[in-house]
Amino acid sequence: MVEFQTPHLDAVFHALSDPTRRAILHRLSEGEHTISELATPFNMSLAGASKHIKVLEGAGLVRRHVQGRTHFCQLEAARLAEAQQWLRTYERFWTTRLDDLEEILREEDRASARASEQLPPGQSAKKSRSTK
Amino acid sequence: MVEFQTPHLDAVFHALSDPTRRAILHRLSEGEHTISELATPFNMSLAGASKHIKVLEGAGLVRRHVQGRTHFCQLEAARLAEAQQWLRTYERFWTTRLDDLEEILREEDRASARASEQLPPGQSAKKSRSTK
Repeated sequence: MVEFQTPHLDAVFHALSDPTRRAILHRLSEGEHTISELATPFNMSLAGASKHIKVLEGAGLVRRHVQGRTHFCQLEAARLAEAQQWLRTYERFWTTRLDDLEEILREEDRASARASEQLPPGQSAKKSRSTK
Repeated sequence: MVEFQTPHLDAVFHALSDPTRRAILHRLSEGEHTISELATPFNMSLAGASKHIKVLEGAGLVRRHVQGRTHFCQLEAARLAEAQQWLRTYERFWTTRLDDLEEILREEDRASARASEQLPPGQSAKKSRSTK
């Protein structure tokens, strides 16, 4: 089970489990921001924002650089790519379900078309979905 | 910031932040298992496994059905699809980086080709990447 011992993913998924941290990442996706700018829309204290930024930094999702007394934050997307890669291994479960649904709809159409062919002349069967 | 108030995602990302829970999901991706079967490879107590299963159930990632005294668990992948959808909005950051890299390599090739054309006859420039 060694492949599941991926401390990056532990920290990344933990960081993403908080709506404020997800919102901070969204703002950083538009460009660099200071911690003060990030705190404002949430009516958060600088200390509160800083705590969230530290979790995001710890997970490798945010990079900080300091100019004088101002701390600038940037999005680091590579670890998000790792998380997406992990989720991708489960993709077949929802794509398979969509494929199944498509096949059910096609089968209904075929059954409807067969019923239409078997009716005596003059009687029309329920129209198939594809001809609607 | 209403779009970030997605309690599903809070619970899903929290559930995924633990390596044992990710490993349990992986086993369930191969098929239904009892809690006892899920506990065995981790040398976990039934109580320990049950606690993890409850977190996964709470996040909507596992469905449980009971036959007599046996609890069977199944993977529920729809919420993983929601998490992937969230991550997809950041995809442009890593795809853009790859596109940038490709453009840099192409520009190097073009510069190398131009240098080659400008050299006096008999002198060869460094070969371009595309002709290696």
